Amino acid sequence: MLVADLIRRKRDGERLDAGEVRQFIAGVTDGSIADYQTAAMLMAIYFQGLDGEELAAWSDAMLRSGDVLELRSVAAPKVDKHSTGGVGDKISLPLAPAVAACGVAVPMISGRGLGHTGGTLDKLESIPGFRVDLDAAAFEAQVARLGACLIGQTARIAPADRKLYALRDVTGTVESIPLIASSIMSKKLAEGIDALVLDCKVGSGAFMKTLERARELARTIAAIGDAAGKRVTTVLSDMNQPIGRAVGNASEVAETIEVLRGDGPADTRELTVALGAEMLALAGVGDGAARIARALDGGAALEKFREIVRAQGGDPRVCDQPEAILPRAPEETPVRARRPGRVAAVDAEAVGTAVVLLGGGRRRKEDRVDPAVGVTVLARLGDEVREGQPLALVHHRGDAAAAAAMIAEAYLIEDQAPAPPPLIHDIMRPREAA
Amino acid sequence: MLVADLIRRKRDGERLDAGEVRQFIAGVTDGSIADYQTAAMLMAIYFQGLDGEELAAWSDAMLRSGDVLELRSVAAPKVDKHSTGGVGDKISLPLAPAVAACGVAVPMISGRGLGHTGGTLDKLESIPGFRVDLDAAAFEAQVARLGACLIGQTARIAPADRKLYALRDVTGTVESIPLIASSIMSKKLAEGIDALVLDCKVGSGAFMKTLERARELARTIAAIGDAAGKRVTTVLSDMNQPIGRAVGNASEVAETIEVLRGDGPADTRELTVALGAEMLALAGVGDGAARIARALDGGAALEKFREIVRAQGGDPRVCDQPEAILPRAPEETPVRARRPGRVAAVDAEAVGTAVVLLGGGRRRKEDRVDPAVGVTVLARLGDEVREGQPLALVHHRGDAAAAAAMIAEAYLIEDQAPAPPPLIHDIMRPREAA
Repeated sequence: MLVADLIRRKRDGERLDAGEVRQFIAGVTDGSIADYQTAAMLMAIYFQGLDGEELAAWSDAMLRSGDVLELRSVAAPKVDKHSTGGVGDKISLPLAPAVAACGVAVPMISGRGLGHTGGTLDKLESIPGFRVDLDAAAFEAQVARLGACLIGQTARIAPADRKLYALRDVTGTVESIPLIASSIMSKKLAEGIDALVLDCKVGSGAFMKTLERARELARTIAAIGDAAGKRVTTVLSDMNQPIGRAVGNASEVAETIEVLRGDGPADTRELTVALGAEMLALAGVGDGAARIARALDGGAALEKFREIVRAQGGDPRVCDQPEAILPRAPEETPVRARRPGRVAAVDAEAVGTAVVLLGGGRRRKEDRVDPAVGVTVLARLGDEVREGQPLALVHHRGDAAAAAAMIAEAYLIEDQAPAPPPLIHDIMRPREAA
Repeated sequence: MLVADLIRRKRDGERLDAGEVRQFIAGVTDGSIADYQTAAMLMAIYFQGLDGEELAAWSDAMLRSGDVLELRSVAAPKVDKHSTGGVGDKISLPLAPAVAACGVAVPMISGRGLGHTGGTLDKLESIPGFRVDLDAAAFEAQVARLGACLIGQTARIAPADRKLYALRDVTGTVESIPLIASSIMSKKLAEGIDALVLDCKVGSGAFMKTLERARELARTIAAIGDAAGKRVTTVLSDMNQPIGRAVGNASEVAETIEVLRGDGPADTRELTVALGAEMLALAGVGDGAARIARALDGGAALEKFREIVRAQGGDPRVCDQPEAILPRAPEETPVRARRPGRVAAVDAEAVGTAVVLLGGGRRRKEDRVDPAVGVTVLARLGDEVREGQPLALVHHRGDAAAAAAMIAEAYLIEDQAPAPPPLIHDIMRPREAA
């Protein structure tokens, strides 16, 4: 079968069989299919979608394009969490140690930030010495020993996805639910997990702007999980404003330490507890919310984080004196309310983009990230503010005018504000775990 | 504007402005836009189309990506004909000299065969010595002197189209009316013509299978012509069986000579007369059908062809003794009717593909073509045939079993046959020429 024929059939809405899908992904992986043919196929899929069988075959072929971890030496149930990406979304950092402290293993392979959303790896690397480039054996050994390890995607995990992801980024084919879902699942299923909690962000600052699209992504991911025999729970959480107060790599680690001390912003803790409870539920551990809360309040989660930091080469004193260990930007500039009123909207994407402007995120993959810069979000949806009151603090090196202006624009202050959205819109559990 | 944003906007059905279209085509031409981005844009256009303004800008940008001939030294009105591609479609060969013999200049830049449809250049090159690679100056000089010249597309004519065409072929984006129309028009408008007759083939052996699609293509091409100030008449002609009896390069030249002698198959002559009449009408010359018929019957067209052949290096004796000058395949195998009845259908595409199998066409661009092989079509739609009667003759070198079997399959013989379709379904003229 010629590749052009496969593209044409998908373009015309025909179904590709599993063998054809495997042939296509194999060609993408070994380079025998040209990037321009792959790009055309991706755009055809954008318009025509992939049905359940195609999607299962597509994800499976991507997964098998590289190494698949089995983590046989890990006795505990293995559950990971994946977020579709939010601004100020540092939840993986407190969550992994909290869940591990409750006896469920968290083999977490994360990504870097790109565009307005940050990346777990960049945040962890703001801890001096922290290494995210462990190999598969070291990863497995740490998960077995400590119950959690947080690393980056190696070149050997789902190489087909790396290729497709890079192409999608430059060909306008990112926003396709089957492509998003298969990209996520090919990497997550390669981690050797038993189950997955998906934190699907919904709202103005999220990839999924509507609850409807978010539910569709959740259903698509659950279907891929089903086909692979892995249960998936999706938490539909709000992204109409940044999570917590800290946006920026080092400051998000500092906020993580607060949460791990039983403190921190209410939403950041609540999300950690809710996601942790779902992870424990998938592992068969009941009463999860209370367990996670105890791990945070009693210090077990912080101790686990300290062990992880130490094991991965980081300075464990970050747990005790984050302000002394973490880099900090030399300058701070407040962004003030231009009028009195209530915060009616916060454009989270603009806040994330402002951090990119400050040097704290990436426009392109090869950009370096400054861990010290960021934004402290002071005013949240529904808050009453006086004229001139600081809405946010910009932590910067050199000129911050553009970022500050962008954040000022991000705030809509009106006489009345609607009730803030709930932090968690819904939870979609697999039938047997419901 | 980032290229990925342009792709995304087209994908989402937004309109690109003329500047954006120019930027895109310029990037395709100079190579600064990657092929994978172009491929994604082409697939997005396949789904979302191009509106009138986009299409005018797109065609104009493609046209201006290379040299644009002006043919200032040609005093006569200049009209060309373009066919969307048929099996046995040799009409350009008798048509150009017949129209030139009537005083209207025909600057004709043609293509090579690919797939089941033949190409004018391949046919001409079966005349020993005939050169189709004249440069622009020689082309203009010959059009000025003789009234017609038939050459191939040079690398300097519409280079953007060359790139896009090559990509479309391998990315499943050929079958897009705006892309087809802009590809045709970017090349034709670069010839320096005043007007164009489009021979749009319709039927099982054509690119456009339905009259509706063919009309859409005609309207799209006319709109591009309007935007460029060039009138276009479209003849919607039937392609439910090969044109004439000869399919294969040298034999189509032989059939051309028959037509130029006032003889030849009725459909081939009729189409030549009809298309010629429309070309003359666009040039303001009335009573065109009678003029073309006189040029064919009185020998003027054949004399013009002889001059063209001589001017382009070919052996002019082809006009007198085609059977002595043209290459001929060593073997001939008849394809016989398997049952008595009437010819209810002839799969013209299969006949064209059989000629490719014989070596007379191309599967890939770089294939060489054997001018001597081909098929003589004996039985036509509606003809009554006896069992064992030859339906066609295969002219071949070596084994012809596969080609013969394909032709046998191409014939549907039944007790009753529907009335054969008209040769010309409709003619769509510009308002002022109607």
